[in-house]
Amino acid sequence: MSPDEAALAAGIDAVETLGPLDPVAMADAAAILEVLTTPPGSLGRLEDLVVQLAGITATPRPTLRDRAIVVAAADHGVARRGVSAYPAEVTTQMVGNFLAGGAAINTLGAIVGASLTVIDVGVAGSILDASPEGGSGARLIRARVRPGTADMTVGAAMSRAEALRAIAVGLAASRSLRASGVELIAVGEMGIGNTTAASAITAAMTGLAAERVTGHGTGIDDATHAHKVEIVTRALGRHRPDPADPIGVLAAVGGLEIGALVGVLIGAVAGRVPVVLDGFITGAAALLAAALAPGIAPRLIAGHRSVEPGHAIVVERLGLRPILELDLRLGEGTGAALAITVIDAAIALRDGMATFGSARDSGRHERTTPVDR
Amino acid sequence: MSPDEAALAAGIDAVETLGPLDPVAMADAAAILEVLTTPPGSLGRLEDLVVQLAGITATPRPTLRDRAIVVAAADHGVARRGVSAYPAEVTTQMVGNFLAGGAAINTLGAIVGASLTVIDVGVAGSILDASPEGGSGARLIRARVRPGTADMTVGAAMSRAEALRAIAVGLAASRSLRASGVELIAVGEMGIGNTTAASAITAAMTGLAAERVTGHGTGIDDATHAHKVEIVTRALGRHRPDPADPIGVLAAVGGLEIGALVGVLIGAVAGRVPVVLDGFITGAAALLAAALAPGIAPRLIAGHRSVEPGHAIVVERLGLRPILELDLRLGEGTGAALAITVIDAAIALRDGMATFGSARDSGRHERTTPVDR
Repeated sequence: MSPDEAALAAGIDAVETLGPLDPVAMADAAAILEVLTTPPGSLGRLEDLVVQLAGITATPRPTLRDRAIVVAAADHGVARRGVSAYPAEVTTQMVGNFLAGGAAINTLGAIVGASLTVIDVGVAGSILDASPEGGSGARLIRARVRPGTADMTVGAAMSRAEALRAIAVGLAASRSLRASGVELIAVGEMGIGNTTAASAITAAMTGLAAERVTGHGTGIDDATHAHKVEIVTRALGRHRPDPADPIGVLAAVGGLEIGALVGVLIGAVAGRVPVVLDGFITGAAALLAAALAPGIAPRLIAGHRSVEPGHAIVVERLGLRPILELDLRLGEGTGAALAITVIDAAIALRDGMATFGSARDSGRHERTTPVDR
Repeated sequence: MSPDEAALAAGIDAVETLGPLDPVAMADAAAILEVLTTPPGSLGRLEDLVVQLAGITATPRPTLRDRAIVVAAADHGVARRGVSAYPAEVTTQMVGNFLAGGAAINTLGAIVGASLTVIDVGVAGSILDASPEGGSGARLIRARVRPGTADMTVGAAMSRAEALRAIAVGLAASRSLRASGVELIAVGEMGIGNTTAASAITAAMTGLAAERVTGHGTGIDDATHAHKVEIVTRALGRHRPDPADPIGVLAAVGGLEIGALVGVLIGAVAGRVPVVLDGFITGAAALLAAALAPGIAPRLIAGHRSVEPGHAIVVERLGLRPILELDLRLGEGTGAALAITVIDAAIALRDGMATFGSARDSGRHERTTPVDR
């Protein structure tokens, strides 16, 4: 067993050792909600989130104040087949934009007070470091496994060893974030061509036809979409990836950033850190991670549902219900970051509201405070 | 024409004078979005919101920093028919809770930096003022038209003059908020029994049967729900309200807080102030307001879709698409306040991101700033 295989096996073991979500913490969280001055259940999914977060963290009242956004970036050999509205160079440019602080994820990360970590796990171009003065505070992890995948229509996107290496990069990144005290991780990605990889992974893992799971990405026209479906179909026909072998699927038709995200998810969940997923690509990574370690799925939060048709299928397979449906199709972790505003509202209501007991005891004209704070 | 009728007529005139959403401001807003470092349309509904807000305010880049939540409160005679899970006294208690700062809407209002104005337009019980020391900063407008409506199953909920009075209270409240500089208004309500009134209004205005539009409110069981449907059916049979006469509908089966909300909506829209709706009751008020002044609907933002079946019908009739779907059924303006977090994210992206021009010009390793700030 290679060191990367050993690291993955240890991560999977750690996840499976967790067992179900912590029932005591969940019952405690439900009891906290029950005495708030609202009819039971009237806060809907905000209450579900409070209970789920308690179960994941094994803590009745997690605050999740220290949060990180992790964006994995890599290029895709299949991009040269004309499956995207953008040239491959945009991957490198956008990583530069993340580090400079000018991207959508920088703005949304600032709103929710999250740090930003960008993992270069396989960008093809040269990334300049953000200068300490002009930088946005974003951190770059340089862990390029290879400068982009190979074209999946002519061969495997990467070797099995490279797939394991990419996962190990993600495992190490989430371990490092956990060690620095991060309590909540939102994941995102950047990689021109990666909805093609996500479509192929989703088709491989679900057995559905390419047409069902392939969408318009960042905005291709219908002719390009038909071509993209044909590319995915061709890649699947060539490799016939086995859904019982998620690493094999990743190697055949995946992406390096998707591999890194598999590692981030496993590493975070193993440490009882809740993970907020973004759109289709992070969802495809979750599908692979959940196939490796079934204990993953209930510890994930689907931040939003994108317009990609494959994404709805992915979240349904994972048994998740997205928090937001805002027709986003940007990636970068933007939907995940936005969903943190809803998670924060749920936490604020849990901790900030009066309880029926305190509202009665303190009189209606005085400020009420929760009984157990 | 009574002074209240004259005030309403002036409000309706002011709305109808506005004409369509401002096309120049909308085009300018779209142009601002176009140069951001995101593929066109990839921010989905966030982009729609930026353009709609420009159209409503006739300003390309409204900031909407000064925002108010307006909660109208009143009691309902029909509550004595056992249509709610809670006794009527809870209306008074919750108004006290709003003023004391212990309710869900206080917590969510604080998150989005909104002031809270509570209008007592017809609460039955005695409301103590929040003491200056212990108070939450919430403002109480004492404008009780009558101490709750009459039971709509035995007579009109209120007289036509009282309905007009309630609307005038709301018109005055939104005028006062606009005068103090408020740029965005979120509306909410409190009134035990008011989903019954909203169901009756929705049935009257749409012609749909009571079964279609009547839900479980704050959490009644199925037997009580069947009884509630029968109460709504009975009230509609007794009054046969005419959808061409929204004031008559309001008087027959409405609520005083719903009347006040009609006035708040008309007054806000007349002053080009965007209004974020909450759930079913504020939606029923919007249905009446839009029947009085068709220019209202495109200037409203549906904050969320609640679990009330009638609410989905209301937002569809208004031509709106809710921002959030979180199974909330609390009222108070909670869904509207939560939606402001999404509006704020849209505004932050509009103003905080790099443009394609700046990202190119400034080099990838330097902080980029929008060209036009």
